[in-house]
Amino acid sequence: MDGIHLLGEWYGCPADTPEFTRADALRKLCVALVRDTGLTVVGDAFYQFEPQGVTGTVLLAESHLAIHTWPEYGFVTVDVYVCNLATDNRAKAEQLFHTLEAALKPKRTRFQAIHRGGKDE
Amino acid sequence: MDGIHLLGEWYGCPADTPEFTRADALRKLCVALVRDTGLTVVGDAFYQFEPQGVTGTVLLAESHLAIHTWPEYGFVTVDVYVCNLATDNRAKAEQLFHTLEAALKPKRTRFQAIHRGGKDE
Repeated sequence: MDGIHLLGEWYGCPADTPEFTRADALRKLCVALVRDTGLTVVGDAFYQFEPQGVTGTVLLAESHLAIHTWPEYGFVTVDVYVCNLATDNRAKAEQLFHTLEAALKPKRTRFQAIHRGGKDE
Repeated sequence: MDGIHLLGEWYGCPADTPEFTRADALRKLCVALVRDTGLTVVGDAFYQFEPQGVTGTVLLAESHLAIHTWPEYGFVTVDVYVCNLATDNRAKAEQLFHTLEAALKPKRTRFQAIHRGGKDE
């Protein structure tokens, strides 16, 4: 099961972005961006930390999006993992990753792309 | 925000393991194993593919567990990502990862551990 996993660490995100601090706003953004890419939502879970900060995932037919925000550090980690069962979903995964990054406006980023599965099927 | 992300690809899992094919069984297993480690569940979402296969995540106060199963290929991918905000959670993450692996019984595995965050806070 060939797949691609994009991992981001985003630093210096503006602390007053609602999508960065509130679970309901981040959930709405994530689900909308997933749908915009043409990936398929099959579930989600988001949790609001108090006084701020969010952890959440959107389950995809193609695998998952996971995001964790630490407003006190201006820091976010993001995972977009898609398998390529019927079609190559890498371009959709990259679109999702970059539109989410544009919404949360980090000043500095680290990025890794990891190939998963494939050889031993 | 220092953290550790364990990524597994498990091949040759026995196709008749209920936790491998059914969302309710896999959810129950994952939540129980997370609690056994002392990590903190703050939410979850699991989805049943038909005729078989599961995608799911358990949200943790410490980040997340994500798992995807493809019974038709005997294949599973697993992510255990924990941050180390107040304490070093790596040992708990490894315990969770290995007890889950023992339950799903892969014949062959690939493993990566990725350090996340930390330098640019």
